[in-house]
Amino acid sequence: MRLLGKQEVEDIAVGAALLGTGGGGDPYIGKLMALQAIEEHGPIKLLDPDEVPDEAVIVPSAMMGAPTVMVEKIPSGDEAITAFQSLKDNLSTEIYATMPIEAGGVNSLLPFALAARQGLPVVDCDGMGRAFPELQMVTFYLDGMSATPMVLSDEKGNGMVLNTINSVWAERLARGATIEMGGSVMLAIYPMKGEEMKQSAIRNTLTLEENIGRSIREAKENNDDPVQSVLKITSGYELFQGKVSDINRKTETGFTRGTAKIEGIHNYNGSELTLSFQNEHLLATCGDDVLCVTPDLIAVLDAETGMPITTEGLRYGARCIVIGMPCDPKWRTEKGIATAGPGYFGYDVDYIPVEQLNQKEAK
Amino acid sequence: MRLLGKQEVEDIAVGAALLGTGGGGDPYIGKLMALQAIEEHGPIKLLDPDEVPDEAVIVPSAMMGAPTVMVEKIPSGDEAITAFQSLKDNLSTEIYATMPIEAGGVNSLLPFALAARQGLPVVDCDGMGRAFPELQMVTFYLDGMSATPMVLSDEKGNGMVLNTINSVWAERLARGATIEMGGSVMLAIYPMKGEEMKQSAIRNTLTLEENIGRSIREAKENNDDPVQSVLKITSGYELFQGKVSDINRKTETGFTRGTAKIEGIHNYNGSELTLSFQNEHLLATCGDDVLCVTPDLIAVLDAETGMPITTEGLRYGARCIVIGMPCDPKWRTEKGIATAGPGYFGYDVDYIPVEQLNQKEAK
Repeated sequence: MRLLGKQEVEDIAVGAALLGTGGGGDPYIGKLMALQAIEEHGPIKLLDPDEVPDEAVIVPSAMMGAPTVMVEKIPSGDEAITAFQSLKDNLSTEIYATMPIEAGGVNSLLPFALAARQGLPVVDCDGMGRAFPELQMVTFYLDGMSATPMVLSDEKGNGMVLNTINSVWAERLARGATIEMGGSVMLAIYPMKGEEMKQSAIRNTLTLEENIGRSIREAKENNDDPVQSVLKITSGYELFQGKVSDINRKTETGFTRGTAKIEGIHNYNGSELTLSFQNEHLLATCGDDVLCVTPDLIAVLDAETGMPITTEGLRYGARCIVIGMPCDPKWRTEKGIATAGPGYFGYDVDYIPVEQLNQKEAK
Repeated sequence: MRLLGKQEVEDIAVGAALLGTGGGGDPYIGKLMALQAIEEHGPIKLLDPDEVPDEAVIVPSAMMGAPTVMVEKIPSGDEAITAFQSLKDNLSTEIYATMPIEAGGVNSLLPFALAARQGLPVVDCDGMGRAFPELQMVTFYLDGMSATPMVLSDEKGNGMVLNTINSVWAERLARGATIEMGGSVMLAIYPMKGEEMKQSAIRNTLTLEENIGRSIREAKENNDDPVQSVLKITSGYELFQGKVSDINRKTETGFTRGTAKIEGIHNYNGSELTLSFQNEHLLATCGDDVLCVTPDLIAVLDAETGMPITTEGLRYGARCIVIGMPCDPKWRTEKGIATAGPGYFGYDVDYIPVEQLNQKEAK
């Protein structure tokens, strides 16, 4: 167990935005909520997964919706507590701790705000090791666990308890409700035993995020190259450097979807990168070459500051560096690729690990 | 308390289809389910509202969805029991009885099937005195009662508990979920105390339905005019006689919407009636004249047999008699007309009671 204060939360917010690969919501909002909660309730207890008893009940908390909506409809935090309490009543049990379901600006940090206000610890893990747009895209689903009973709560005071036959139905019914409820809601979801969490979760994601955030901060303080630090920590690859030349972004059926074009500069002069996203960046191509594809991670960094840019933060003319990073091995299984690979999202390319694609590029 | 056997159920099915004003689902399906339940579990106990203790908990049960879908997706009855049990768990209390929420082919009779299988009585009342397409269109809503906690269950095994800030939100979220769940679901809804039911429900609807059904049956047995019997029991008016000449019917956003044209015969030769419906018949006009409009009741009867025809049962060429009947006085209040009057459904006519419209016609 260790305590997280404001500096740790600042660093985690940056690392979470990077692993969020453009999605997971605005890191600024999640950070503000977590900092406010620390201000009011003191530092947050972070538990290593191994510190959680096997029989303890863990309930992840998350926001669901299109990031473009989240920016304008900032949660008060009360919805998260309502969802959490309602699931606790439904389960008729005490909840030992919460955890994030994904890495991403809002969803890595919202559990901190909830935990601080409820006096609960947060477990240092998540269900994706990155961000993904749909509820079944978690290691818990790959391991056959149920997303339900789960609770959705909106800021108006409406709540919904779902019990579905599988996580794909949970996603479908929750997505429809999220749209009706105004585009974003708070969830208490995938209730699980400590034992299941230890087997299935991706471990120490929050610590990784903190390390990424700190390395970017320290590189800037020392006038080092923040992008190189990030590539080192994440075993990542620089894919491209350029200037955003076109953005096509729509919020539809509860998602932020679209593509961005990036015109090459420096070594990449004369080529153009196409970035396709659905809440998260999912595919980076250059002409006919795939440079990186989901479930591997694609992040866009500000060329100057090394700070991650979200899909809704991409602006015309922004100078950026695009990097690719290997996903957790759980995503490289047959079920992992069927669940969150390019085919699921409708991209007509095969999944090839970013390490291999990058070797090819280097030839 | 009295016991309802097969003959009573047959009669209620006919009366329910009539008060269902074209909606409330196919009477044949509801009847089959109720008859099957009586076959297996014996006669059904019908309670007068005054026989229910003030503190007893009553939970209405109903099917939600487009009648056109219900015809093809026949419920097994298990969904209704799942919804009922789930609400019982949620309320942590015993349920004393069930009741219909509306009059209509399916929704008057499904509570019988549920009651027989659960060994519960049915209360002789409902929340509309007719059928209406949306969940807040009940006297319980007019009296400020909450539709939630309510449960939706589908035939696949998915379930949802809703807690909403008002019944309009309950309708909105449940409608979205119903569409996702395949177009029809079973509900346990508007849980209430005996005292509330006695104040708010429309009383003895089931007995009225039975009287209507029996009078149609007996008129046929005695070669009398069944339509005249119905008009007498319901204080109704003959609006039109004709032949269906055009039907425009769509299933969209979870409803069966459309219009039918009826070409006059006999006394009505040369005129044309337009019937507008949204699950239920809501407006009958002849040229510029309104003949009957919601919340008053409009029913279409087979000219030969006097049997009610549902909106999805209307066929080109069918000879029919259209009748109008006064609604319960609760619907003629300001809130009643705002909730289920012509303006709510987007018809640009004022509400005028069918008695008044009929006097004018007689001038």
